[in-house]
Amino acid sequence: MRRQQGWTALVMLACAIGISGCGRSSETRRELGALKAQIAALKLQAQATQDWTAIANLQASYGYYVDKMRWDDAADLFARDATLEIAGRGLFEGQDRIRTYLHALGKLERGTLFNHMQLQPVIHLEPDGNSAKARWRTFMQVGHLGKEARWGEATYENEYVKEEGIWKIRKLHGFITFYVEFDKGWNKGGVALPQKLDNLDPDAPPTVSYGAFPDVFVPPYHYSNPVSGRGS
Amino acid sequence: MRRQQGWTALVMLACAIGISGCGRSSETRRELGALKAQIAALKLQAQATQDWTAIANLQASYGYYVDKMRWDDAADLFARDATLEIAGRGLFEGQDRIRTYLHALGKLERGTLFNHMQLQPVIHLEPDGNSAKARWRTFMQVGHLGKEARWGEATYENEYVKEEGIWKIRKLHGFITFYVEFDKGWNKGGVALPQKLDNLDPDAPPTVSYGAFPDVFVPPYHYSNPVSGRGS
Amino acid sequence: MRRQQGWTALVMLACAIGISGCGRSSETRRELGALKAQIAALKLQAQATQDWTAIANLQASYGYYVDKMRWDDAADLFARDATLEIAGRGLFEGQDRIRTYLHALGKLERGTLFNHMQLQPVIHLEPDGNSAKARWRTFMQVGHLGKEARWGEATYENEYVKEEGIWKIRKLHGFITFYVEFDKGWNKGGVALPQKLDNLDPDAPPTVSYGAFPDVFVPPYHYSNPVSGRGS
Repeated sequence: MRRQQGWTALVMLACAIGISGCGRSSETRRELGALKAQIAALKLQAQATQDWTAIANLQASYGYYVDKMRWDDAADLFARDATLEIAGRGLFEGQDRIRTYLHALGKLERGTLFNHMQLQPVIHLEPDGNSAKARWRTFMQVGHLGKEARWGEATYENEYVKEEGIWKIRKLHGFITFYVEFDKGWNKGGVALPQKLDNLDPDAPPTVSYGAFPDVFVPPYHYSNPVSGRGS
Repeated sequence: MRRQQGWTALVMLACAIGISGCGRSSETRRELGALKAQIAALKLQAQATQDWTAIANLQASYGYYVDKMRWDDAADLFARDATLEIAGRGLFEGQDRIRTYLHALGKLERGTLFNHMQLQPVIHLEPDGNSAKARWRTFMQVGHLGKEARWGEATYENEYVKEEGIWKIRKLHGFITFYVEFDKGWNKGGVALPQKLDNLDPDAPPTVSYGAFPDVFVPPYHYSNPVSGRGS
Repeated sequence: MRRQQGWTALVMLACAIGISGCGRSSETRRELGALKAQIAALKLQAQATQDWTAIANLQASYGYYVDKMRWDDAADLFARDATLEIAGRGLFEGQDRIRTYLHALGKLERGTLFNHMQLQPVIHLEPDGNSAKARWRTFMQVGHLGKEARWGEATYENEYVKEEGIWKIRKLHGFITFYVEFDKGWNKGGVALPQKLDNLDPDAPPTVSYGAFPDVFVPPYHYSNPVSGRGS
């Protein structure tokens, strides 16, 4: 019995070593768990930042297509259930209607200038990882040789959705802030915007009523003040 | 004794298995350590990139507030101990004085245009993770119906600080490079900028003395050449 | 023997504990392998996003140097084997020739305005991690006191290369879309661009033949439609 107890003690020692091994394993499990959590958090962060750049690319791409009146390419950037509303011309619902609206803006031909620079993004990803909102502005040089030449600016409040890994425009809402003759400027007033394009009726009236320069209007913000948290 | 040695040998074998377990654990520990180091480096990298986008959002937000003379919102974006210096009008120190300066720029009313597009960022995060510097430019459309209409541009050299996880402007320094009448342009010279606003004295004289167009001035860079490393 | 078998059994138990330790290790190895793979993927993603911001910084830096005719700083941003082609003036090959071309654009002196705002990036990193392509545009205010004053715009299709961890411009191709007198605008036609600078012959003729406004031309895209995948 004594000898057996002796061996038992030794085996207990072996067990102890084993158990100490088990102890490390439990520490390992804890550490692995912590790393997994950190990696999961990092993935969300890295994805959100990459999404910021993807949305910046997307809206910039939209602008280049609009410049050259490549309407089908521009319409393709919208989700099937997207909406578009520009310059108080009412709401167009769904990608098909957006396509119709865009085509009604005209056709690129010699003497056309239709630049819509896409500038100054404030992009916020939603926590769900599949949607985002952004404020942008476009600076416009628009006109036709022998006809009109105009400067203009609009502020966008847009929404985006990620479908099957691809970001699309879900909502484009452009508020014209000024639209003036090339040679007149903003001390002589603005140019009236056509309220309709080619007798194209919108699907719904404008969601916001406002006037461009010389009226002043603050397009609603999708975000509250990033420091004070006040307002929206 | 012999038998005991035999058992000892067997227990040694058990130990060996245990030790081999320990051996794996030590390899595991090494690998865990390597992963932790990689994750820590990744965190810094992902954070710095996210901070780039956060600062881009912040400065863009500033611009939208300035456009619409939302001075309290604009002032809220500055740190308590921030400084502001624009157009050679001297230095304003602290958020309260910045607020006073901004309010002195005027009030949004019908016929006001005060667009300050925020463009072309070069943003560098400091290694401490809590501060950053950036070069930006603003393209301005400024004027009042029936009064003046002007184009202008300024280059900013700004600093940012992260306080309790929130990025704020710590220093805004705008160098006006041109400011011209809407209908005159830069071959006929620029418009003189008011050196003072409403008898508002700065807290300190300008830190840099320079002239806008037709003078030429290279606003100092916070960075050296990104490829050659020369200059600053 | 019986006793020995007893001890053996106990040692087997110890082994079992050891083996159970080994079992955890194999699970640990599997988990470590999964984490390593996730971290490797995250590294590529975080690097690509950081590269997006680095290239945005680089091209913006180029613009600030061009504004002030800091030609050596601008030329230093190009790779040794880079090419440059602007405004149909032909192809310049290699950093040295690019430097010569840039210096031929003039010297900053009182009364010079040469702003080249760098705007609206669409940046795509290549899978190799060391190269990238981007579409940009520049909005120009160019002129000299007492001489000309002009507005212009060009679209860039550029390429970038990372050499020893530093991003450089490998190809800069600027397509002028309009270039007009400050006071005439785009309904009265554009200004002809000089096809040569100071009798500086290019190394090769233009790779693309096109006309600026009032001609219309769609600068080729380096990317297909980001949603539909059509075109390029």
